[in-house]
Formats: sequence, C-alpha cells, structure tokens
Amino acid sequence: MKDKSNFDEDIEDIGVSENTIGDNLTHKKFFDEAITQANIAAKKGEIPIGCVIVKDGKIVAKAYNRRERTNDATAHAEVLAIKKACKRLKNWRLTGCDIYVTLEPCMMCMGAIVNARIRKIYYCAPNNNPNLNHNVDSECIINDNYVSLLRDFFANKR
Amino acid sequence: MKDKSNFDEDIEDIGVSENTIGDNLTHKKFFDEAITQANIAAKKGEIPIGCVIVKDGKIVAKAYNRRERTNDATAHAEVLAIKKACKRLKNWRLTGCDIYVTLEPCMMCMGAIVNARIRKIYYCAPNNNPNLNHNVDSECIINDNYVSLLRDFFANKR
Repeated sequence: MKDKSNFDEDIEDIGVSENTIGDNLTHKKFFDEAITQANIAAKKGEIPIGCVIVKDGKIVAKAYNRRERTNDATAHAEVLAIKKACKRLKNWRLTGCDIYVTLEPCMMCMGAIVNARIRKIYYCAPNNNPNLNHNVDSECIINDNYVSLLRDFFANKR
Repeated sequence: MKDKSNFDEDIEDIGVSENTIGDNLTHKKFFDEAITQANIAAKKGEIPIGCVIVKDGKIVAKAYNRRERTNDATAHAEVLAIKKACKRLKNWRLTGCDIYVTLEPCMMCMGAIVNARIRKIYYCAPNNNPNLNHNVDSECIINDNYVSLLRDFFANKR
C-alpha cells in the first residue's frame, strides 16, 4: 500500500484516494485483458475462462482455457498462464506476481497458484460449480523403501 | 470387488483370497515403476516423486517430478503423467484410469486428478508437508459483462 500521507486533503475528504482510483483503473485494465482471453476461448467452443499474470504493473503471461482443443484435463487458463510466466521469468517461483482470472479458480488451479507462490488472486465471477462432479477414491499402501528414499533425499539436502 | 463365492474354502480359511494376492502383486508392479520414476527424479536433483497411470491393467503414462529442471511450478509427476495419458488416450477424461503415485498428492495434483476423472489414487507415503508454506490472498470484483458472457455460453450449450 502506498503511503497516503502526501495525498491532497480534498481527495481524502470525498473518501476516494488517488491510490484507490489508480488501483481500480489498474484492475480494470487487467480484467479487460482476462475477459478478452475468455472471449477467445468462447469463440473456439471452450468454456470462456481467461487470465493474465501481472508483475510490477506489467502483464507477463496471458492464456485462455484450451481443455477441449488440446484434449488435456490440465489445460485450464491459469495453469497455462503459470507455465508461460515461469518460462518467461525463468523461475517456478512467481514471487510478487498477481493473477487476474475471470472465474474463481478450481482446486487444481488454486493449488497451482499456491505452488507458484503467486501473491494475490483477483477474479470477477464466483465459481458455483467447484469440483463436486467427480469423486475420487484414494488408498495409502505404505512402502518403506520409498519412505527411506524420500527421507534420505531431504537428509542430504540439509 | 470380485465375487468370492466360488473361491476355495481353504484359501478363504487362511484369510487371503486369490483376489487379494492378485491385487497386491498388481499394486506392487505399478508402485515399483512409480518408485523407479522417483529414483530418476532424485538422480536429477529433483524431489523424488514418481507416478504411473494405469488403464485395464496396463501403464498408459509414467512421469517424475521435473519442477527444478523445467523451472515450471506445475511440472509435478502427476500433472505430467495426466498430460501424457490424455494425449495418448486422446481424451481429457481418463475414465477407468487409476494413478499410482509415490507421495500423497498436493492440492494442485489432487485437483488435476479430479478434473481428469481418474477413478482411484494409490500412494505409498503420506504427505506431511501439504501446501501450508504459502498463503495466497484472493478478492472477487464482480464484472457483470463477464457473468453475462458465461451465462450466455452455457445457455447456448443447453
């Protein structure tokens, strides 16, 4: 947050700081591009979801949902944009990056955003259909050899 | 589960059904390959995590964690294997597929598994370090244009 101490008092008085105006314009610019991406998806028959990743006020990656055309369950807009941003910034840690996505992310994309250390998610529509359409069963069958492999790996790292 | 009614009573008596023995050998075979994949990752300096995806008793994809070498936050073993399986089966729905992964999946991979409609997850070590090492803030700023776009898209689909 910018220090507001130097702001004009009149602006402060009407309850809208210069900073807030600037923030809203910035949000609008990035959401507009995310919605443009969503529109590209719609034209290609994909569920219209788009996003941009922003660092230091600049777009570093943009993408739209391509699940159907690529036959790839992971080809959601957010995952594709994260892959592009990682490639561009040559780092899997997207520290200081924010993501503007049209729809509230699913569990996979939320996990990808967390894994990539993204700072903040902005979205412009809530997801009323989270991953409740498929149940997956899971079972843990402990393998001591693997547990040792993993333990040794981290022991050697420290 | 196979119907046990025709099983030999002696086998039933010692508490190990033919079916169970068969299942365990099958699990071992797939876990062995997943652990082989994890070992490849370890040799390359990656956190040792490997997996295979199985359909009708056959491996359709295998992969190991490549996050560091690819600089890609999404390059976990499970996501890479899901992408390969989708490509091979030419379908983002991996119906009837099971995944054998060495470590309990993170939130991103769990979401990818659900999105891909995978039937069952087998893993051989619990994940004691889920995604708690990074907090991400999120904010919804409703955009009526986008909400309309999404609504119209689904209205036209139905």
